[in-house]
Amino acid sequence: MKNFPSSISRMIDAFASLPGIGEKTATRLVFHLVRSPENLARELGEAATSLKKDLRLCACCRNIATSEQCEICEDAERDASQICVVEEALDVLAFEKAGAWKGSYHVLHGVLNPLEGIGPESLTIVDLLRRVERGGVAEIILAMNPSVEGEATASYITKQLQPFQIKITRIARGLPTGSELSYADEVTLAAAMKGRRDF
Amino acid sequence: MKNFPSSISRMIDAFASLPGIGEKTATRLVFHLVRSPENLARELGEAATSLKKDLRLCACCRNIATSEQCEICEDAERDASQICVVEEALDVLAFEKAGAWKGSYHVLHGVLNPLEGIGPESLTIVDLLRRVERGGVAEIILAMNPSVEGEATASYITKQLQPFQIKITRIARGLPTGSELSYADEVTLAAAMKGRRDF
Repeated sequence: MKNFPSSISRMIDAFASLPGIGEKTATRLVFHLVRSPENLARELGEAATSLKKDLRLCACCRNIATSEQCEICEDAERDASQICVVEEALDVLAFEKAGAWKGSYHVLHGVLNPLEGIGPESLTIVDLLRRVERGGVAEIILAMNPSVEGEATASYITKQLQPFQIKITRIARGLPTGSELSYADEVTLAAAMKGRRDF
Repeated sequence: MKNFPSSISRMIDAFASLPGIGEKTATRLVFHLVRSPENLARELGEAATSLKKDLRLCACCRNIATSEQCEICEDAERDASQICVVEEALDVLAFEKAGAWKGSYHVLHGVLNPLEGIGPESLTIVDLLRRVERGGVAEIILAMNPSVEGEATASYITKQLQPFQIKITRIARGLPTGSELSYADEVTLAAAMKGRRDF
């Protein structure tokens, strides 16, 4: 086997284009498919082909949806006056799984990153401003990741929202539950100390 | 997003059915595809759908092939009198990449595992015996993994080959190159000691 059959190397390339999957893992996965019954590869193929057919972005919060608005924006029991701004649709999922939020969301689909050419126009910031302009928004929670890009994006959005005079908050930084203080990095410890609250 | 859109959860299930990919990784991969341009998901879909179309098993060594015989069995420069018996097609690839073998192969497609109901009839042992029966085979190298199942399969094949009186060898066990003796497990150390050679 000096060269792979072309159908195998094509599948290896497809897997290896996914994040976190290198050529070695991709090869293992493909040989697993080759060894497995026919329908496993076919199911994967059909699922991938039809993945994006019914998907669109919610007209309101830009989350992934199957109709004009996503389930959360359509849900009358959710508090539309509070908007939690997140980087990715996956972050919405994390909050929903935790049951930690009963307001609405806004999905940016990325963070500002000038080095990679991602400016405000690549994100859904303009949609967020339009939501605020329409009125009825009391609080914006900036829930971007605690990274350099996340902080920069939070600062940018805060500046854009200044004319509206609404409450703007940032999710808390500190020690994750169940962690050990002695293993925490300095930036986390400093943030935990700075954010201390009455007990 | 109380529930995923069905096309997303279908894709998550398809990814999660692959070895080494849990639900969390599968979800990340799917959201990556959702975020990416349309053609990435489509390419993955088409590659998976057509993966097994042209593939078959080599009539001689049972390796994965695109025609009646695999490239190695068709290659007149390879020594067909020496057969290296391996568990999987992936193992052939490992030897070929290392350039460590100029003979032929035989792919078992598994190992004996009575607990999982894998007996000799599930493997290609009968094809191997037929190759030996046809004559011209001087040596069989048993290159199954150094695991309990690998050793059991090696013993079984050795027994089946006894009537033919050909040379049967097992690949060497010992310390892997570049490893440190103090980190090696006891079984490996014992094997390395037992297999010592004149220097």
